[in-house]
Amino acid sequence: MRIDRLGEAGLIRLIQRTVRSRGRVKVGIGDDACVLRGGTVITTDAYAEGVHFSLTYMSWRQVGQRCACAAVSDIVAMAGQPEVVLVSLAIPPSADSQSVKQLYSGVEDVCAEMRCEVAGGDVIATDRLVLALAVTGKAEHPKLRSGARSGDRVYVTGSVGAAEAGRIVLAEQSRVQKSECRRHSAGRRKAVPMWAKGLVERHLRPVPRLQVVRALAPGIHGLIDTSDGLATDARHLCVMSRVRIVLDAERIPVSPATARLCTEQGLDPMRFALASGEDYELLFTSRRPLPERVNGVDVACIGAVQTGSGLFLSHCGHVESVRLSGYDHLSGGVHSGALLGDKYVDKSADK
Amino acid sequence: MRIDRLGEAGLIRLIQRTVRSRGRVKVGIGDDACVLRGGTVITTDAYAEGVHFSLTYMSWRQVGQRCACAAVSDIVAMAGQPEVVLVSLAIPPSADSQSVKQLYSGVEDVCAEMRCEVAGGDVIATDRLVLALAVTGKAEHPKLRSGARSGDRVYVTGSVGAAEAGRIVLAEQSRVQKSECRRHSAGRRKAVPMWAKGLVERHLRPVPRLQVVRALAPGIHGLIDTSDGLATDARHLCVMSRVRIVLDAERIPVSPATARLCTEQGLDPMRFALASGEDYELLFTSRRPLPERVNGVDVACIGAVQTGSGLFLSHCGHVESVRLSGYDHLSGGVHSGALLGDKYVDKSADK
Repeated sequence: MRIDRLGEAGLIRLIQRTVRSRGRVKVGIGDDACVLRGGTVITTDAYAEGVHFSLTYMSWRQVGQRCACAAVSDIVAMAGQPEVVLVSLAIPPSADSQSVKQLYSGVEDVCAEMRCEVAGGDVIATDRLVLALAVTGKAEHPKLRSGARSGDRVYVTGSVGAAEAGRIVLAEQSRVQKSECRRHSAGRRKAVPMWAKGLVERHLRPVPRLQVVRALAPGIHGLIDTSDGLATDARHLCVMSRVRIVLDAERIPVSPATARLCTEQGLDPMRFALASGEDYELLFTSRRPLPERVNGVDVACIGAVQTGSGLFLSHCGHVESVRLSGYDHLSGGVHSGALLGDKYVDKSADK
Repeated sequence: MRIDRLGEAGLIRLIQRTVRSRGRVKVGIGDDACVLRGGTVITTDAYAEGVHFSLTYMSWRQVGQRCACAAVSDIVAMAGQPEVVLVSLAIPPSADSQSVKQLYSGVEDVCAEMRCEVAGGDVIATDRLVLALAVTGKAEHPKLRSGARSGDRVYVTGSVGAAEAGRIVLAEQSRVQKSECRRHSAGRRKAVPMWAKGLVERHLRPVPRLQVVRALAPGIHGLIDTSDGLATDARHLCVMSRVRIVLDAERIPVSPATARLCTEQGLDPMRFALASGEDYELLFTSRRPLPERVNGVDVACIGAVQTGSGLFLSHCGHVESVRLSGYDHLSGGVHSGALLGDKYVDKSADK
């Protein structure tokens, strides 16, 4: 079977069946990162040009920042302190060395903020730019996707859908600019409109919420980052913790800017928020009531964990089953926009 | 400047200037792997189809084996015990899931032999097959490239140039087969000739010499694996240890099969041995005289470490400076064959 038909989950199961444990790992394939005996947490993530980032509207430094944020996020999503980053770079041999320097500067920016460091890596020559980042960290008490308990509240940091909204703004600008360039002899780089700056920032630099994890870790039960979209990631918590989660549609934090982008694009903000990935916010459960702001970051209570299974959305008194998923790295479209069909909220399953 | 002009060493210096240490690392950029405080060793390596391996004459399982051997070798080359392997896979979405399974089976084969395990990874869809493997290990007393001391003997395991000879045999077979296919309606896969089987095995499955490191580690001073070619890797020892190394041409172990391949191809076996990479043998220095066989692996004394600097080759009483290098991942040709010019042994520097 083609792997895009098998999908990410199917492929992970196939890999799990192929490899064997030899007692070196406490938490292996299936969480944000793997935990070794001794509390070292380690993760690896790959990013390809044209799939995970675009050099048409991102600088090399921004590519470095974005990829580093995304990779480090997996360590933070285990309640770990990031320690070192290793960068594997597959790059066209014609690339300029200053571009490589800028890319590493971007990774370094994020390392400075996260108090970790670039400790090595590898550069090979290919025709297509691919980065693979390995990150290690320390987590004495790692928080897992399987930690959610019935009776917990569900929380999310920041706002949902902002990164994808930012990507759409940038892609749209780049498209308009290209067509203007074709019409006139030269085009000027258009500035991002003021209202969209926060969105673009979250797409380009989705800095992991380490300060929230540091403050709240002892009270956190289940934890994941929102890399694949709120619906998919909440479902991961459901499956791994064997619980039912009911999200409250009215409380999912969608920023006014994201709502404006949705209006302009004719998109439903709630669907957009459920399906859009790569915010790298923290989605977690805790028994405790938490303040609305923790170390300068918004924390919203958006639902409840119950006994049972599956992901549900409560909306104006109705509770609907959320069947689908945001983003599948293999079978899905490249961006969540492709997934905003009717099918992902199955209204017939009303309960 | 284009990175292929800057070269690998120049790029490493540029990266070193760009990133900052934050005290998390004992040994950072510039050795086979980096060493964290606490004795964890970690490395990452990327491999691209058409550059580091070829699916025209390798099965997916062989690709997994070869890449895993190469990545794990960096841990062994620090005198570390490999622990976990993380696989980042960039793969065309049309790939068959059985191919992915075979690739992971190949990685698993090597893990079983090295007593480590696949602990996670990442799969993304791209148009070009690229693997990035991160490997961790434990090394209480890591052996570094900088450990060679004047007065040491220089040793190498196995035989030199075998992997590249094996690659040439396979590539040649694949070429002949293609042209036969064009002439007749169908071609049969030609068997590797008996004399070349060992060469092909070393290209496809360059299993790291963990059993030698285990036996000899306390007496080893400087240590590196021969991934870039004997000349380049010996030079790394010279530079990092600030010593002069004189290799004895008569004692460099070139197998009869490699010599036969060189004769058939019209190549000078000594030049071939110095320039050919990817044997993943151990090149190390020790004060002690060592047996010629350790745990079933040949160990040859091939030279001496002296005060001074630079790499030299002693040959029939002459001592020549070896100016060049085997393989540069950015500026060099893909294979050492491209480097077998006259320039890499500078005879004018006779001393």
